[in-house]
Amino acid sequence: MAISDSPATLALSDVLAAAKRIAPLVRRTPQIETEPLRAESGARAIHLKLESLQNTGAFKVRGASNRILSLTDAERARGVITFSTGNHGKAVSYVAREAGVRAVICMSEHVPAYRAEAIRALGAEVVIKGHSQDEAEIEYVRIRDDEGMVPVVPFDDPWVVCGQGTVAVEMLTCNPEIDTLLVPLSGGGLLAGMAMTAKSIKPGVRVIGVSISQSPAMLESLRAGKPVAVEEKDTLADSLLGGIGVENRFTLPLIERYVDEHVVIDEPEIEAGLYYALESHSLVIEGGSAVGIAAIQSGKVNVRGRTVGIAITGSSVDISRYLEVVSKFVQ
Amino acid sequence: MAISDSPATLALSDVLAAAKRIAPLVRRTPQIETEPLRAESGARAIHLKLESLQNTGAFKVRGASNRILSLTDAERARGVITFSTGNHGKAVSYVAREAGVRAVICMSEHVPAYRAEAIRALGAEVVIKGHSQDEAEIEYVRIRDDEGMVPVVPFDDPWVVCGQGTVAVEMLTCNPEIDTLLVPLSGGGLLAGMAMTAKSIKPGVRVIGVSISQSPAMLESLRAGKPVAVEEKDTLADSLLGGIGVENRFTLPLIERYVDEHVVIDEPEIEAGLYYALESHSLVIEGGSAVGIAAIQSGKVNVRGRTVGIAITGSSVDISRYLEVVSKFVQ
Repeated sequence: MAISDSPATLALSDVLAAAKRIAPLVRRTPQIETEPLRAESGARAIHLKLESLQNTGAFKVRGASNRILSLTDAERARGVITFSTGNHGKAVSYVAREAGVRAVICMSEHVPAYRAEAIRALGAEVVIKGHSQDEAEIEYVRIRDDEGMVPVVPFDDPWVVCGQGTVAVEMLTCNPEIDTLLVPLSGGGLLAGMAMTAKSIKPGVRVIGVSISQSPAMLESLRAGKPVAVEEKDTLADSLLGGIGVENRFTLPLIERYVDEHVVIDEPEIEAGLYYALESHSLVIEGGSAVGIAAIQSGKVNVRGRTVGIAITGSSVDISRYLEVVSKFVQ
Repeated sequence: MAISDSPATLALSDVLAAAKRIAPLVRRTPQIETEPLRAESGARAIHLKLESLQNTGAFKVRGASNRILSLTDAERARGVITFSTGNHGKAVSYVAREAGVRAVICMSEHVPAYRAEAIRALGAEVVIKGHSQDEAEIEYVRIRDDEGMVPVVPFDDPWVVCGQGTVAVEMLTCNPEIDTLLVPLSGGGLLAGMAMTAKSIKPGVRVIGVSISQSPAMLESLRAGKPVAVEEKDTLADSLLGGIGVENRFTLPLIERYVDEHVVIDEPEIEAGLYYALESHSLVIEGGSAVGIAAIQSGKVNVRGRTVGIAITGSSVDISRYLEVVSKFVQ
């Protein structure tokens, strides 16, 4: 299977091909309506797409599946490698095992042991090396080049972008009346894929990227017209930390082209969004998943009269930190 | 539509008719595999059926839909009435509104205001009367008889039993290799329906009812060969509190006929089951939902080599009590 190597020629057909390809490994997650937020905001309806219930607990399995299931036989024999410690690492580990492909995930000694264990339990080989993420990345490059392994990058890749875009296909198939999409934004794989998909299906849809104030790398890059690094600060939405890559080729131009608006969410707003999901739906979601809810709750996005879809992206939480946060809201 | 008025002649066809009838109002909930419990127990696979993600947060909407969508036009015009304050009350309220039927839910002054509000928000008229559940029930009987409203009882009714049985249809359709079912037991609507259904589809399946030590009314009734009342004690699994009805006609004989084994779970085991769902799957479930997990975790049920299905029945929790319980497990 081939895919365009230029963001300009990626199309809905690539996303539909992804949807077919990844179906055996990916759950069609439920979409639920949320009432208190609808009433408060004056929206016509608000649909939450629960990728938090996706296999391995996050949407990342979509992009990883689309990449790994598209490997040639020669590439499959070489195996895949990546260096994410979070949801992307889990996704690659899971998909590679299901596809019968060797996978190596590199991380530093500073990564908490439970994270390495979660990835290893899904089947990948975990290589722990160095005292920082940068040193782990050097080891990743060494193994990749020495052993000729195929890199599966977390967002800036056409297969990954199209895999993540399948979330929008499911949302607009279930609820074609959705006219406003709220999507968390970090490296931009999900937002780029969903925005391209949604605009192709329904050109008038309004697509809003939701960044966090602690790490708005894509926003700064859009302003600068090229990838820029930002200082990362501690955040409850740790799955949204990170830059967009100094050689970004796909997600920056796609987001520039297809996304209508941007909004930035701060930590107290994330906390309120987390508690909303627990109180209203008994849902545990990760900080990065709460930003879409927070964008409406905070009044930063006006959705009066709109039919809204929000991507709830994952459910990986540090339980003790999670409990600490939500406990603050309980009398 | 007619249904048999004798438990002896209820059949899978009644459940399949229910599945078709209730489809517009009921979510086909996901089924996920759970790995740590599988590894610990030596099972081949353990599937969790997440009725906790069902509309209104519990499986009860299935039975209520099957009853209300089977009303004659004359009955629809009279409206429906019940006196549950929990998941059944929410289900009746939701279904009646969707079906365009008037609904009245009776409860006592002692029911917490937020419970009444949750039911009212779904569309029903809430009648608050008396200082106890018994006094509320007297008011329920008065309105029912004065206004000729149609009672929708929570479990001892053939429509309700067959509606709840649809959970087993979905489980065995998705995973026909399931050979062991664990189902929470209180009034027995869910267990009776699922057991009859599962044995009809796969006679060799092993069906296990899971009761709570604080309110094992069905178990005592099975021993006595007739309905008996038991003293109810405080429990985290409050959705499993309650008797089986002094005039029980359906669930007692069906459970006697179709259920293979029974197990009783205590409070610390329920707490451990709750925490397992949170830690392993980021799922908030109610105490009554945790008993199937607890039956395996505690070693009370041996599932070595088996392919297990567990009904996770609901997600209605008092958040502050829930947080208190799960916090005990976090260092």
